[in-house]
Amino acid sequence: MFIAFEGLDGCGKSTQLELLFNYLKSLNKKVIKVREPGGTEVGEKIRSILLNKDLNINDRAELLLFLASRAQLVEEIIKPALKCGYYVLADRFADSSIAYQGGARNLGIETVDFLNKFATNNIFPDLVFFIDISVELALKRLNMKNKDRLEKEGRSFLEKVRKSYMEIAKTKSNFIIINGERNVNEIFSDIKRTIDNHIISK
Amino acid sequence: MFIAFEGLDGCGKSTQLELLFNYLKSLNKKVIKVREPGGTEVGEKIRSILLNKDLNINDRAELLLFLASRAQLVEEIIKPALKCGYYVLADRFADSSIAYQGGARNLGIETVDFLNKFATNNIFPDLVFFIDISVELALKRLNMKNKDRLEKEGRSFLEKVRKSYMEIAKTKSNFIIINGERNVNEIFSDIKRTIDNHIISK
Repeated sequence: MFIAFEGLDGCGKSTQLELLFNYLKSLNKKVIKVREPGGTEVGEKIRSILLNKDLNINDRAELLLFLASRAQLVEEIIKPALKCGYYVLADRFADSSIAYQGGARNLGIETVDFLNKFATNNIFPDLVFFIDISVELALKRLNMKNKDRLEKEGRSFLEKVRKSYMEIAKTKSNFIIINGERNVNEIFSDIKRTIDNHIISK
Repeated sequence: MFIAFEGLDGCGKSTQLELLFNYLKSLNKKVIKVREPGGTEVGEKIRSILLNKDLNINDRAELLLFLASRAQLVEEIIKPALKCGYYVLADRFADSSIAYQGGARNLGIETVDFLNKFATNNIFPDLVFFIDISVELALKRLNMKNKDRLEKEGRSFLEKVRKSYMEIAKTKSNFIIINGERNVNEIFSDIKRTIDNHIISK
Protein backbone atom coordinates (compact mmCIF):
# COMPACT_ATOMS: atom_id res chain seq x y z
CA MET A 1 0.00 0.00 0.00
CA PHE A 2 1.29 3.40 -1.09
CA ILE A 3 0.38 6.38 1.13
CA ALA A 4 1.38 10.00 0.50
CA PHE A 5 1.26 12.97 2.86
CA GLU A 6 0.61 16.37 1.35
CA GLY A 7 0.15 19.91 2.58
CA LEU A 8 1.80 23.29 3.03
CA ASP A 9 5.24 23.34 4.62
CA GLY A 10 4.74 23.51 8.37
CA CYS A 11 1.45 21.59 8.28
CA GLY A 12 2.83 18.73 10.35
CA LYS A 13 2.83 16.06 7.64
CA SER A 14 6.31 14.79 8.47
CA THR A 15 5.31 14.32 12.12
CA GLN A 16 2.18 12.42 11.08
CA LEU A 17 4.15 10.29 8.63
CA GLU A 18 6.52 9.38 11.46
CA LEU A 19 3.59 8.43 13.75
CA LEU A 20 2.08 6.24 11.05
CA PHE A 21 5.46 4.66 10.37
CA ASN A 22 5.82 3.72 14.05
CA TYR A 23 2.22 2.53 14.25
CA LEU A 24 2.63 0.21 11.25
CA LYS A 25 5.91 -1.05 12.68
CA SER A 26 4.09 -1.84 15.95
CA LEU A 27 1.66 -3.97 13.93
CA ASN A 28 4.66 -5.84 12.45
CA LYS A 29 4.00 -4.46 8.99
CA LYS A 30 6.85 -3.97 6.52
CA VAL A 31 7.09 -0.23 5.98
CA ILE A 32 9.48 2.30 4.43
CA LYS A 33 9.42 6.07 4.17
CA VAL A 34 10.56 8.17 1.23
CA ARG A 35 10.93 11.89 0.76
CA GLU A 36 10.63 14.25 -2.18
CA PRO A 37 12.68 15.61 -3.74
CA GLY A 38 15.36 13.06 -2.93
CA GLY A 39 15.21 9.56 -1.51
CA THR A 40 17.76 8.09 -3.92
CA GLU A 41 21.37 8.97 -4.69
CA VAL A 42 20.31 10.67 -7.93
CA GLY A 43 17.36 12.31 -6.18
CA GLU A 44 19.48 13.75 -3.38
CA LYS A 45 21.76 15.35 -5.97
CA ILE A 46 18.67 16.85 -7.62
CA ARG A 47 17.43 17.98 -4.20
CA SER A 48 20.64 19.91 -3.59
CA ILE A 49 20.07 21.81 -6.86
CA LEU A 50 16.42 22.56 -6.02
CA LEU A 51 17.14 23.82 -2.51
CA ASN A 52 20.18 25.91 -3.49
CA LYS A 53 19.28 29.52 -2.70
CA ASP A 54 21.92 30.93 -5.05
CA LEU A 55 20.42 29.38 -8.18
CA ASN A 56 17.70 31.09 -10.15
CA ILE A 57 15.85 28.07 -11.54
CA ASN A 58 13.02 28.78 -13.96
CA ASP A 59 9.58 27.30 -13.31
CA ARG A 60 9.66 24.65 -16.03
CA ALA A 61 13.17 23.49 -15.12
CA GLU A 62 12.11 23.33 -11.47
CA LEU A 63 9.15 21.10 -12.25
CA LEU A 64 11.24 18.86 -14.51
CA LEU A 65 13.82 18.43 -11.75
CA PHE A 66 11.11 17.40 -9.28
CA LEU A 67 9.79 14.94 -11.85
CA ALA A 68 13.26 13.51 -12.52
CA SER A 69 13.72 12.88 -8.80
CA ARG A 70 10.26 11.28 -8.68
CA ALA A 71 10.93 9.03 -11.68
CA GLN A 72 14.08 7.74 -10.05
CA LEU A 73 12.36 7.23 -6.70
CA VAL A 74 9.52 5.23 -8.26
CA GLU A 75 11.77 2.89 -10.23
CA GLU A 76 14.49 2.43 -7.64
CA ILE A 77 12.52 2.34 -4.37
CA ILE A 78 8.73 2.52 -4.57
CA LYS A 79 7.99 -0.10 -7.23
CA PRO A 80 10.28 -2.78 -5.75
CA ALA A 81 8.98 -2.08 -2.23
CA LEU A 82 5.31 -2.34 -3.24
CA LYS A 83 6.10 -5.56 -5.07
CA CYS A 84 7.52 -7.01 -1.84
CA GLY A 85 4.44 -6.06 0.16
CA TYR A 86 5.79 -2.98 1.92
CA TYR A 87 3.76 -0.01 3.03
CA VAL A 88 5.40 2.97 1.36
CA LEU A 89 4.95 6.32 3.13
CA ALA A 90 5.85 9.35 1.00
CA ASP A 91 6.49 12.85 2.34
CA ARG A 92 5.07 14.64 -0.74
CA PHE A 93 4.44 13.05 -4.11
CA ALA A 94 2.75 13.85 -7.43
CA ASP A 95 0.04 16.10 -5.96
CA SER A 96 2.71 18.50 -4.69
CA SER A 97 3.71 19.19 -8.29
CA ILE A 98 0.09 19.74 -9.26
CA ALA A 99 -0.53 22.16 -6.38
CA TYR A 100 2.79 24.03 -6.41
CA GLN A 101 3.88 24.06 -10.05
CA GLY A 102 0.60 23.36 -11.86
CA GLY A 103 -1.56 25.63 -9.74
CA ALA A 104 0.52 28.20 -7.90
CA ARG A 105 3.11 28.67 -10.66
CA ASN A 106 0.47 28.50 -13.41
CA LEU A 107 2.06 25.73 -15.46
CA GLY A 108 -1.37 24.13 -15.78
CA ILE A 109 -2.95 21.33 -13.80
CA GLU A 110 -3.62 19.10 -16.86
CA THR A 111 -0.08 19.55 -18.15
CA VAL A 112 1.42 18.62 -14.79
CA ASP A 113 -0.97 15.69 -14.59
CA PHE A 114 0.38 14.38 -17.92
CA LEU A 115 3.97 14.95 -16.83
CA ASN A 116 3.35 13.14 -13.52
CA LYS A 117 1.98 10.13 -15.38
CA PHE A 118 5.10 10.02 -17.52
CA ALA A 119 7.48 10.42 -14.58
CA THR A 120 5.82 7.84 -12.34
CA ASN A 121 5.01 5.42 -15.16
CA ASN A 122 1.44 5.57 -13.77
CA ILE A 123 2.33 4.57 -10.22
CA PHE A 124 0.22 6.68 -7.83
CA PRO A 125 -0.65 6.51 -4.11
CA ASP A 126 -3.59 4.44 -2.92
CA LEU A 127 -4.26 7.07 -0.27
CA VAL A 128 -3.27 10.72 0.10
CA PHE A 129 -3.57 12.50 3.45
CA PHE A 130 -3.77 16.24 2.92
CA ILE A 131 -2.96 17.86 6.28
CA ASP A 132 -4.80 21.14 5.95
CA ILE A 133 -3.77 24.26 7.85
CA SER A 134 -4.49 27.92 7.12
CA VAL A 135 -1.96 30.04 5.27
CA GLU A 136 -1.68 32.18 8.43
CA LEU A 137 -0.57 29.22 10.53
CA ALA A 138 1.81 28.04 7.80
CA LEU A 139 3.47 31.46 7.67
CA LYS A 140 3.69 31.65 11.44
CA ARG A 141 5.41 28.28 11.65
CA LEU A 142 7.76 29.03 8.77
CA ASN A 143 8.89 32.30 10.35
CA MET A 144 10.41 30.31 13.16
CA LYS A 145 12.69 28.37 10.80
CA ASN A 146 15.39 29.21 8.33
CA LYS A 147 13.68 29.59 5.01
CA ASP A 148 14.99 27.80 1.95
CA ARG A 149 14.28 28.90 -1.61
CA LEU A 150 10.93 27.16 -1.89
CA GLU A 151 9.69 28.57 1.37
CA LYS A 152 10.42 32.17 0.46
CA GLU A 153 7.30 32.57 -1.62
CA GLY A 154 4.97 34.41 0.70
CA ARG A 155 1.28 34.57 1.36
CA SER A 156 -0.32 34.81 -2.09
CA PHE A 157 1.74 31.89 -3.36
CA LEU A 158 0.71 29.71 -0.40
CA GLU A 159 -2.92 30.69 -0.90
CA LYS A 160 -2.74 29.47 -4.50
CA VAL A 161 -1.11 26.22 -3.35
CA ARG A 162 -3.84 25.56 -0.78
CA LYS A 163 -6.58 26.38 -3.28
CA SER A 164 -5.03 23.96 -5.78
CA TYR A 165 -4.95 21.18 -3.19
CA MET A 166 -8.65 21.81 -2.59
CA GLU A 167 -9.29 21.51 -6.34
CA ILE A 168 -7.48 18.16 -6.39
CA ALA A 169 -9.61 16.97 -3.46
CA LYS A 170 -12.75 17.53 -5.54
CA THR A 171 -11.60 15.19 -8.31
CA LYS A 172 -9.85 12.38 -6.42
CA SER A 173 -11.71 10.03 -4.12
CA ASN A 174 -8.53 8.77 -2.44
CA PHE A 175 -7.54 12.30 -1.38
CA ILE A 176 -8.45 12.76 2.28
CA ILE A 177 -8.52 16.20 3.88
CA ILE A 178 -7.38 16.16 7.50
CA ASN A 179 -7.88 19.20 9.73
CA GLY A 180 -4.27 19.95 10.71
CA GLU A 181 -5.07 22.71 13.20
CA ARG A 182 -5.55 20.36 16.16
CA ASN A 183 -3.09 18.69 18.44
CA VAL A 184 -0.83 15.98 17.05
CA ASN A 185 -2.73 13.06 18.61
CA GLU A 186 -6.13 14.23 17.46
CA ILE A 187 -4.82 14.51 13.91
CA PHE A 188 -3.21 11.10 14.08
CA SER A 189 -6.37 9.42 15.37
CA ASP A 190 -8.09 10.39 12.08
CA ILE A 191 -5.24 8.93 10.07
CA LYS A 192 -5.09 5.78 12.19
CA ARG A 193 -8.83 5.20 11.79
CA THR A 194 -8.57 5.38 7.99
CA ILE A 195 -5.60 3.02 7.93
CA ASP A 196 -7.27 0.55 10.34
CA ASN A 197 -10.31 0.43 8.08
CA HIS A 198 -8.10 -0.32 5.11
CA ILE A 199 -6.23 -3.07 6.94
CA ILE A 200 -9.44 -4.68 8.16
CA SER A 201 -11.09 -4.48 4.74
CA LYS A 202 -8.24 -6.41 3.12
CA MET B 1 18.35 32.67 -35.99
CA PHE B 2 18.54 29.47 -34.00
CA ILE B 3 20.66 26.64 -35.45
CA ALA B 4 21.18 23.22 -33.86
CA PHE B 5 23.74 20.54 -34.68
CA GLU B 6 22.72 16.94 -34.22
CA GLY B 7 24.24 13.54 -34.77
CA LEU B 8 25.94 10.58 -33.13
CA ASP B 9 28.82 11.32 -30.77
CA GLY B 10 31.95 11.48 -32.86
CA CYS B 11 30.15 12.75 -35.98
CA GLY B 12 32.07 16.03 -35.98
CA LYS B 13 29.19 18.33 -35.08
CA SER B 14 31.19 20.28 -32.49
CA THR B 15 33.91 20.96 -35.07
CA GLN B 16 31.32 22.15 -37.59
CA LEU B 17 29.62 24.31 -34.99
CA GLU B 18 32.97 25.94 -34.26
CA LEU B 19 33.60 26.60 -37.96
CA LEU B 20 30.16 28.17 -38.36
CA PHE B 21 30.72 30.25 -35.24
CA ASN B 22 33.97 31.63 -36.64
CA TYR B 23 32.41 32.18 -40.06
CA LEU B 24 29.51 34.19 -38.64
CA LYS B 25 31.95 36.18 -36.50
CA SER B 26 33.96 36.99 -39.66
CA LEU B 27 30.74 38.40 -41.16
CA ASN B 28 30.37 40.59 -38.05
CA LYS B 29 27.25 38.73 -36.93
CA LYS B 30 26.35 38.51 -33.26
CA VAL B 31 26.62 34.82 -32.37
CA ILE B 32 26.72 32.60 -29.29
CA LYS B 33 27.13 28.87 -28.80
CA VAL B 34 25.38 26.71 -26.24
CA ARG B 35 25.77 23.07 -25.29
CA GLU B 36 23.46 20.41 -23.98
CA PRO B 37 23.18 19.27 -21.31
CA GLY B 38 24.59 22.33 -19.60
CA GLY B 39 25.15 25.89 -20.77
CA THR B 40 23.84 27.50 -17.55
CA GLU B 41 24.85 27.20 -13.93
CA VAL B 42 21.81 24.99 -13.23
CA GLY B 43 22.42 23.07 -16.45
CA GLU B 44 26.04 22.34 -15.66
CA LYS B 45 25.00 20.89 -12.29
CA ILE B 46 22.49 18.70 -14.12
CA ARG B 47 25.21 17.75 -16.63
CA SER B 48 27.45 16.50 -13.86
CA ILE B 49 24.65 14.18 -12.68
CA LEU B 50 23.98 12.89 -16.21
CA LEU B 51 27.62 12.16 -17.00
CA ASN B 52 28.42 10.56 -13.64
CA LYS B 53 29.40 6.96 -14.39
CA ASP B 54 28.67 5.80 -10.84
CA LEU B 55 24.98 6.69 -10.94
CA ASN B 56 22.38 4.31 -12.28
CA ILE B 57 19.83 6.78 -13.64
CA ASN B 58 16.60 5.30 -15.00
CA ASP B 59 15.45 6.23 -18.51
CA ARG B 60 12.60 8.52 -17.49
CA ALA B 61 14.68 10.39 -14.93
CA GLU B 62 17.45 10.76 -17.51
CA LEU B 63 15.10 12.32 -20.05
CA LEU B 64 13.58 14.64 -17.43
CA LEU B 65 17.05 15.83 -16.42
CA PHE B 66 17.92 16.63 -20.03
CA LEU B 67 14.64 18.50 -20.33
CA ALA B 68 15.25 20.47 -17.12
CA SER B 69 18.64 21.56 -18.43
CA ARG B 70 16.99 22.52 -21.74
CA ALA B 71 14.21 24.51 -20.06
CA GLN B 72 16.78 26.53 -18.13
CA LEU B 73 18.93 27.08 -21.22
CA VAL B 74 15.98 28.35 -23.26
CA GLU B 75 14.78 30.83 -20.64
CA GLU B 76 18.14 32.05 -19.45
CA ILE B 77 20.20 32.13 -22.65
CA ILE B 78 18.45 31.26 -25.92
CA LYS B 79 15.31 33.40 -25.68
CA PRO B 80 17.12 36.59 -24.61
CA ALA B 81 19.82 36.06 -27.26
CA LEU B 82 17.33 35.55 -30.10
CA LYS B 83 15.45 38.64 -28.94
CA CYS B 84 18.68 40.66 -29.28
CA GLY B 85 19.32 39.41 -32.81
CA TYR B 86 21.98 36.84 -32.04
CA TYR B 87 22.65 33.68 -34.00
CA VAL B 88 22.38 30.88 -31.47
CA LEU B 89 24.36 27.72 -32.27
CA ALA B 90 23.39 24.70 -30.19
CA ASP B 91 25.47 21.54 -29.82
CA ARG B 92 22.46 19.20 -29.52
CA PHE B 93 18.90 20.26 -28.73
CA ALA B 94 15.38 18.81 -28.68
CA ASP B 95 15.94 16.30 -31.49
CA SER B 96 18.62 14.57 -29.41
CA SER B 97 15.97 13.67 -26.84
CA ILE B 98 13.67 12.39 -29.57
CA ALA B 99 16.40 10.23 -31.14
CA TYR B 100 18.12 8.99 -27.97
CA GLN B 101 15.34 8.76 -25.38
CA GLY B 102 12.24 8.67 -27.55
CA GLY B 103 13.59 6.28 -30.17
CA ALA B 104 16.57 4.36 -28.85
CA ARG B 105 15.30 4.03 -25.28
CA ASN B 106 11.72 3.42 -26.40
CA LEU B 107 10.07 6.21 -24.38
CA GLY B 108 8.05 7.11 -27.47
CA ILE B 109 8.65 9.79 -30.07
CA GLU B 110 5.25 11.50 -29.55
CA THR B 111 5.68 11.55 -25.78
CA VAL B 112 9.13 13.11 -26.03
CA ASP B 113 7.77 15.57 -28.58
CA PHE B 114 5.16 16.72 -26.05
CA LEU B 115 7.75 16.92 -23.26
CA ASN B 116 10.10 18.95 -25.50
CA LYS B 117 7.33 21.44 -26.23
CA PHE B 118 6.73 21.87 -22.51
CA ALA B 119 10.43 22.22 -21.67
CA THR B 120 11.26 24.70 -24.43
CA ASN B 121 7.97 26.60 -24.18
CA ASN B 122 7.73 25.97 -27.94
CA ILE B 123 11.09 27.50 -28.85
CA PHE B 124 12.69 25.33 -31.56
CA PRO B 125 15.60 25.76 -34.01
CA ASP B 126 15.04 27.38 -37.38
CA LEU B 127 17.57 24.98 -38.87
CA VAL B 128 18.98 21.64 -37.73
CA PHE B 129 22.14 20.21 -39.29
CA PHE B 130 22.26 16.46 -38.82
CA ILE B 131 25.86 15.38 -39.42
CA ASP B 132 25.36 11.82 -40.53
CA ILE B 133 28.03 9.16 -40.11
CA SER B 134 27.71 5.37 -40.04
CA VAL B 135 27.53 3.55 -36.71
CA GLU B 136 30.82 1.86 -37.63
CA LEU B 137 32.63 5.17 -37.92
CA ALA B 138 31.01 6.45 -34.71
CA LEU B 139 32.20 3.39 -32.79
CA LYS B 140 35.69 3.66 -34.28
CA ARG B 141 35.98 7.29 -33.20
CA LEU B 142 34.54 6.63 -29.74
CA ASN B 143 37.01 3.84 -29.09
CA MET B 144 39.78 6.40 -29.18
CA LYS B 145 38.32 8.42 -26.34
CA ASN B 146 37.45 7.79 -22.73
CA LYS B 147 33.85 6.77 -22.73
CA ASP B 148 31.37 8.43 -20.41
CA ARG B 149 28.11 6.82 -19.34
CA LEU B 150 26.12 7.89 -22.37
CA GLU B 151 28.73 6.66 -24.81
CA LYS B 152 28.89 3.15 -23.34
CA GLU B 153 25.79 1.97 -25.15
CA GLY B 154 27.19 0.02 -28.04
CA ARG B 155 26.24 -0.73 -31.59
CA SER B 156 22.55 -1.62 -31.45
CA PHE B 157 21.76 1.47 -29.38
CA LEU B 158 23.56 3.73 -31.87
CA GLU B 159 21.76 2.07 -34.76
CA LYS B 160 18.43 2.90 -33.13
CA VAL B 161 19.56 6.50 -32.55
CA ARG B 162 20.59 6.94 -36.19
CA LYS B 163 17.34 5.37 -37.41
CA SER B 164 15.34 7.73 -35.20
CA TYR B 165 17.19 10.76 -36.59
CA MET B 166 16.26 9.56 -40.06
CA GLU B 167 12.61 9.32 -38.99
CA ILE B 168 12.73 12.91 -37.75
CA ALA B 169 14.23 14.00 -41.08
CA LYS B 170 11.16 12.68 -42.88
CA THR B 171 8.77 14.86 -40.88
CA LYS B 172 10.71 18.13 -40.48
CA SER B 173 11.53 20.34 -43.44
CA ASN B 174 14.16 22.33 -41.49
CA PHE B 175 16.14 19.17 -40.69
CA ILE B 176 19.09 18.96 -43.09
CA ILE B 177 21.08 15.75 -43.48
CA ILE B 178 24.77 16.40 -44.09
CA ASN B 179 27.08 13.58 -45.16
CA GLY B 180 29.60 13.60 -42.33
CA GLU B 181 31.98 11.04 -43.84
CA ARG B 182 33.97 13.57 -45.84
CA ASN B 183 36.76 15.90 -44.85
CA VAL B 184 36.00 18.79 -42.54
CA ASN B 185 36.07 21.49 -45.22
CA GLU B 186 33.81 19.62 -47.61
CA ILE B 187 31.25 19.19 -44.84
CA PHE B 188 31.48 22.82 -43.88
CA SER B 189 31.00 24.04 -47.43
CA ASP B 190 27.51 22.41 -47.39
CA ILE B 191 26.67 24.12 -44.12
CA LYS B 192 28.08 27.46 -45.29
CA ARG B 193 26.04 27.33 -48.49
CA THR B 194 22.81 26.78 -46.56
CA ILE B 195 23.58 29.62 -44.15
CA ASP B 196 24.60 31.99 -46.97
CA ASN B 197 21.27 31.33 -48.70
CA HIS B 198 19.43 32.11 -45.50
CA ILE B 199 21.36 35.34 -44.92
CA ILE B 200 20.79 36.49 -48.52
CA SER B 201 17.09 35.64 -48.46
CA LYS B 202 16.50 37.87 -45.43
